[in-house]
Amino acid sequence: MRGTVLYAPGDVRVEDRPEAAIEKPTDAVIRLTAACVCGSDLWPYRGIEPIDGPRPMGHEYVGVVEAVGSEVTSVKPGQFVVGSFVASDNTCEICQAGYQSSCVQREFIGGAQADLMRVPLADGTLVATPGTPDADLVPSLLAASDVLGTGWFAAVAAEAGPGKTVAVVGDGAVGLLGVLAAKQLGADQIIAFSRHQDRQKLAREFGATDIVTERGDEGVAKIKELTNGLGAHSVIEAVGTQESMMQAIHSTRPGGHVGYVGVPAEVQLPGVELFFSAVHLHGGPAPVRRFLPDLISLIWNRTIDPGKVFDLELPLDQAAEGYKAMDERRAIKTLLRP
Amino acid sequence: MRGTVLYAPGDVRVEDRPEAAIEKPTDAVIRLTAACVCGSDLWPYRGIEPIDGPRPMGHEYVGVVEAVGSEVTSVKPGQFVVGSFVASDNTCEICQAGYQSSCVQREFIGGAQADLMRVPLADGTLVATPGTPDADLVPSLLAASDVLGTGWFAAVAAEAGPGKTVAVVGDGAVGLLGVLAAKQLGADQIIAFSRHQDRQKLAREFGATDIVTERGDEGVAKIKELTNGLGAHSVIEAVGTQESMMQAIHSTRPGGHVGYVGVPAEVQLPGVELFFSAVHLHGGPAPVRRFLPDLISLIWNRTIDPGKVFDLELPLDQAAEGYKAMDERRAIKTLLRP
Repeated sequence: MRGTVLYAPGDVRVEDRPEAAIEKPTDAVIRLTAACVCGSDLWPYRGIEPIDGPRPMGHEYVGVVEAVGSEVTSVKPGQFVVGSFVASDNTCEICQAGYQSSCVQREFIGGAQADLMRVPLADGTLVATPGTPDADLVPSLLAASDVLGTGWFAAVAAEAGPGKTVAVVGDGAVGLLGVLAAKQLGADQIIAFSRHQDRQKLAREFGATDIVTERGDEGVAKIKELTNGLGAHSVIEAVGTQESMMQAIHSTRPGGHVGYVGVPAEVQLPGVELFFSAVHLHGGPAPVRRFLPDLISLIWNRTIDPGKVFDLELPLDQAAEGYKAMDERRAIKTLLRP
Repeated sequence: MRGTVLYAPGDVRVEDRPEAAIEKPTDAVIRLTAACVCGSDLWPYRGIEPIDGPRPMGHEYVGVVEAVGSEVTSVKPGQFVVGSFVASDNTCEICQAGYQSSCVQREFIGGAQADLMRVPLADGTLVATPGTPDADLVPSLLAASDVLGTGWFAAVAAEAGPGKTVAVVGDGAVGLLGVLAAKQLGADQIIAFSRHQDRQKLAREFGATDIVTERGDEGVAKIKELTNGLGAHSVIEAVGTQESMMQAIHSTRPGGHVGYVGVPAEVQLPGVELFFSAVHLHGGPAPVRRFLPDLISLIWNRTIDPGKVFDLELPLDQAAEGYKAMDERRAIKTLLRP
């Protein structure tokens, strides 16, 4: 079977790999209908995150179940499924509290940019759709696997909802889908930070009421202007840099909520600033599995169309170009078809 | 009138100061019945926090209203009152959301270790008790002004409640009253970190079910042992050092809540560790005013006895000894009688 492998920064190849197979009785193997390139895939691609050898890439996926292990009961061969980027048992105390991405048995998914993939803990990880989806629903269902689920989690963590002003730091696919989530959750005012016209346009389509082009302290000042000097009730952080985290915290009113999902790899939060900001801070790897059933329904009923974030679609064989386009910011997000 | 003034590290004096008086129509002047020394007073006393000149000390207080400005309507001369350590209007949008310590008009109180004190924004800051309290209630009412209100806020921020295991980092007065708050809020299991026998004893009196004497990673391991490997649902952080913050975060299960009230002056939180911990983090200067009416009721009805944290009582004139005893850890908390 074919699959992408990252060999070194900038060097991603599609090559023959060992056929995915059932290894444990709780596994499933799925034949991928679509996969995509995540913003976090760009970290090792750019050499920011070191790799210790060739790495099979991809963790966002939809497909058709090919085979299941002997203990799998909730999905069966032939079903179309969406899964989280973190495998979880969905039964432990942490999962039951809604934190499946921190499941006591969790495994991070890899190798989804391929023809076939083994999914561990299939019962707790995969959700079957009501039937075989129309072709135009596939990108949106694929988005649910990570980028939508992550934007959604950020909006929930930020307590976006009716009566709230929500600000969104980051106009990548996660930030844009954070806008969509805030809208669905009923927020009154949604302010997107963005300097790129195409992304501003998509933010408005997803529900943004205001666009702020300034960043850092100037961006914070704009948010204050728009909120009677108080700051937003809810702020979504979808970047993960020191500047973006501080911009998010400073844009939030005292007692407000910051939902952060950008991996803050290099960030050091100054305790005293956080203390006097009096905000709530919550984030982490999104527990996508918590939201999957609802997100699938919203997509199936055509209430939301998160698939719009894919502005480049390529056959799997051209994965290298898909990475390059995202790296060079020519594409927001690349969908790959095996 | 007499009042304490800090001149330099270790040099706190009781001296004659200008008589407190109404300066604004929203002020009240109160005659202090009791005041006390706060853990945070020890920062400048120890030279950790620099002062830029002689500083009148004290921000925890109970007393009798002596005079009110022309616009004050909610308290009147002769009433016994408890106030927050932060003056607030209690009407702005931030106050109404329960964050009075971040009120748009806030003023930090100073000079409470004195005969008389001016309280700004009296209507939004002071709460009158149902009558003149019995003498034995005074220490508990005084505690409500900061140390109890702060421990209570930490427990609320940590979402302590029924079905929860709560761990408390810090066995100072705030941590001990965090234990009391967690108990009142209905927590099932309350684990206090403490190495001091007298504080362990008080923690148990306040509701601690378990004591852990280990700190840092060893302390975290103990919490994991006591919680089926998962960590506590709720953790109160009442110290404010790098070690104590990380101990609190690592003691919390994914999806759990850390309520932090120790001022983390020197703390830098590593973003990536916070991210993968998947905890909720909330804290800041406690909005004591939010809780004052309920806390006064609980004290008035003799449901709680937070005044037990005062293990040293001195006349105001001996304030210097009160500071010294706390600095040398001979006392948990010093009450001063003008």
